[in-house]
Amino acid sequence: MGLEAFFKPKSVAVIGASRESRKFGHVIFKNFAQSEFEGKTYPVNPKAEKILGFKVYPSLKEIPDEVDLAVIALPAAIVSSAINDCLSKNVKAAVIISGGFKETGEKGEKLENEIKKRITVSNLRIIGPNCIGIYDPTSHVDTLFLPTYRLRRPKPGAIAFITQSGAFGAAILDWASSQDIGISKFISIGNKIDVDEVDLLNYLAEDSLTTCIILYVESIERGREFLKVASKVIERKPLVVLKGGTTPEGANAALSHTGSMAGAANVYKGAFEQVGAIQAQNVDELFDYARVLAYQPIPKAQTDVAIVTNGGGFGVISTDEASRLGIKLASFNKETTKTLKENLPDYAIPRNPLDLVGDADAERYRMALNAVASDPNVGVLLVIVLPQTSYIESDVVDAITECQVTYRKPIVVCSIGGNFTQVMAKMLEEEHIPTYVTPERAINAINALLMYRKVLEDKKRKQRRTEAAK
Amino acid sequence: MGLEAFFKPKSVAVIGASRESRKFGHVIFKNFAQSEFEGKTYPVNPKAEKILGFKVYPSLKEIPDEVDLAVIALPAAIVSSAINDCLSKNVKAAVIISGGFKETGEKGEKLENEIKKRITVSNLRIIGPNCIGIYDPTSHVDTLFLPTYRLRRPKPGAIAFITQSGAFGAAILDWASSQDIGISKFISIGNKIDVDEVDLLNYLAEDSLTTCIILYVESIERGREFLKVASKVIERKPLVVLKGGTTPEGANAALSHTGSMAGAANVYKGAFEQVGAIQAQNVDELFDYARVLAYQPIPKAQTDVAIVTNGGGFGVISTDEASRLGIKLASFNKETTKTLKENLPDYAIPRNPLDLVGDADAERYRMALNAVASDPNVGVLLVIVLPQTSYIESDVVDAITECQVTYRKPIVVCSIGGNFTQVMAKMLEEEHIPTYVTPERAINAINALLMYRKVLEDKKRKQRRTEAAK
Repeated sequence: MGLEAFFKPKSVAVIGASRESRKFGHVIFKNFAQSEFEGKTYPVNPKAEKILGFKVYPSLKEIPDEVDLAVIALPAAIVSSAINDCLSKNVKAAVIISGGFKETGEKGEKLENEIKKRITVSNLRIIGPNCIGIYDPTSHVDTLFLPTYRLRRPKPGAIAFITQSGAFGAAILDWASSQDIGISKFISIGNKIDVDEVDLLNYLAEDSLTTCIILYVESIERGREFLKVASKVIERKPLVVLKGGTTPEGANAALSHTGSMAGAANVYKGAFEQVGAIQAQNVDELFDYARVLAYQPIPKAQTDVAIVTNGGGFGVISTDEASRLGIKLASFNKETTKTLKENLPDYAIPRNPLDLVGDADAERYRMALNAVASDPNVGVLLVIVLPQTSYIESDVVDAITECQVTYRKPIVVCSIGGNFTQVMAKMLEEEHIPTYVTPERAINAINALLMYRKVLEDKKRKQRRTEAAK
Repeated sequence: MGLEAFFKPKSVAVIGASRESRKFGHVIFKNFAQSEFEGKTYPVNPKAEKILGFKVYPSLKEIPDEVDLAVIALPAAIVSSAINDCLSKNVKAAVIISGGFKETGEKGEKLENEIKKRITVSNLRIIGPNCIGIYDPTSHVDTLFLPTYRLRRPKPGAIAFITQSGAFGAAILDWASSQDIGISKFISIGNKIDVDEVDLLNYLAEDSLTTCIILYVESIERGREFLKVASKVIERKPLVVLKGGTTPEGANAALSHTGSMAGAANVYKGAFEQVGAIQAQNVDELFDYARVLAYQPIPKAQTDVAIVTNGGGFGVISTDEASRLGIKLASFNKETTKTLKENLPDYAIPRNPLDLVGDADAERYRMALNAVASDPNVGVLLVIVLPQTSYIESDVVDAITECQVTYRKPIVVCSIGGNFTQVMAKMLEEEHIPTYVTPERAINAINALLMYRKVLEDKKRKQRRTEAAK
């Protein structure tokens, strides 16, 4: 069975809906009842009559309607009987929020296996247990039991995010929202009793709203299927992976976290490499990479980078970082050099990295970006804007977006500072031009683009070889 | 001559003070005239009579008073004659803001050499040219020509920051202010015609307000003196260094930025290692390291780390990172394990990393932090707080600061999220407990503490050997 019922249910039952405002079952019910969710929402609780004005059903079977999705927020011990009810009612999908299963030891594992066994011959699909479930900003399915005043929900965007750790996911969503980063779908998979990363990759490959997928995992059980599916998906959209438990100590910690064997680091590393996943080395890189991969074009034939800056030091540092990562800086051609020479003040030198000097304004950026982006030697642009000078106004954002629209070459921006910088960064983010706080992270993001480009090329080469061999 | 006149002048002349609000000479004069700066301020400009209500002097010599510090914001070509005036007037210190010297080529280098020659036999000390000069939040000396609505000034703190790149410094100051990070003294040294990093290290070693020094350099000309002075300073306070131009390409870019030969990367690396400087690999690390080194105690005999978290995934990731950096996680002793077992809910496991589980509140943190910090096996604490659950209120900050005050062991915090997280992070920063957005960066900061600890131990060992040999 497909996963559509998780993301676009026509009706939802919240089993364990509560009247107490801090209880998970209350928050989840409220998310559906008071949002723009267009389906029907039914609270289920034998001990309540009304919640937020809604009639409460004592059990699932009393609901006089089909139920596509059940969200279960009950103590572990009685989840199994709720699943029985779902099966009787022909519910299509269930999210089990509850913890207290495999991650807590033998007793919990037993409870989990019981449920597992029961659903094998059914059509019911399950996400969880021990998870925070789903957040879909388009359909407004939101099983996050954390109140919005604590966990701000990010706006719709092109990045899908699958995580094995719920708290990790919650923290990142809250952060993403504060950075104006958009999400297409968020799924916390927890103990993966049924639906796992393989199923979700398959589903997200077809999701037209998603252009980049992020995955945090501590373990992958269906290794062979993962290799097959991931490899296919990556032909269509980039996959950024962060693996938790890559050291023996970390793997040990993972065991008591999601009850999963994290497995040998080099096996995972090799597998990710084989399928062409972009491996993040840390939490910063996850979104540093995803933001550029989701929205910026993959560079065409030419991959050399032009750096345009109004601060020399940041030019030096980003050149260092590019060199360290084996990224080549473009040599400007004669025409570009001539244009720059003619239009820059004589204390600025027309070379790459191009230091427009401290008194550069939007006009000078516009001139330089046009000259540089039209140069066939330039494949990618890094624009550094230090907006501490009063020459910089937010119209520099227009100069950058115009350049993007005109030349369709990938652009990333580096900008660091206080309030004004943050406003400018959000303006750029709105235009889908990813902005980074440090030059190293900006260059590193460009590197992710170049890595994915290489992955696609390798895949094409392999395909051609396979076809030729036929 | 000492550098006191730069940081605590009794009187300041701004040469090139202007009436036009965006001109450098205007902003700088305003910084002195309208701040809490306690000395006298004299605007010098032959073409104006009044600026901001102050009487303007046509030349330095007309000022009927001694001048300790002259700030020069004039076109490069006439700076030399302003320096002559400073010499005649016995000015003690001058900051030359103006660019257009060595960094622009031969002609500028000539101008620079002229000034250099002239001051060799005088008592006048010069910072610059091609710099943004000084920001001292205690004495309110502020030669930054960038208006405060663009470049917010950070509050007083314990970190001194020396930078060869002005724009880099300006951007970082603005950012530091937005993060509530305090600065003791900021000095942009530009082309280093006279005062350089060696002089400043010497001066800052004695500065009681400074507990950690940050240095961004592209080149060090007085290598031998640097080795001697830095080595001495580092016995008293940590020095964090970021070197620009560590690759041939970056070094080339540095040449046209500050007109300096960046030199072989490995020579610098070796030198920094030799004196015991903590080397930042990127801009993030500069302040990630400085924030912990400036305020947290150096761990004593025991250096093993305890990780306390309410999110398992972040426990896993930080354990991975610790393992990667060779940082050992502490084994809790029997007493600690017993206390934890008795006081934690039974779905939490009393081990390191210690996952307090999603429903942990301040009381559970307090209990756990007390148990863990009192354990002699624990040298350093990493406290991870994911405040997306409604169990976390800002009183968790009290639990953390109480733990610090009681046990005097180093603590760093990891917390990521939106508005509420940022408020909490600022509360912690106020209490001088450094807070990091990702677990990797928090562990990396702990590593900086351990690196400095090792530096101090090595220095002591060497001293003992030297003394024994006598």
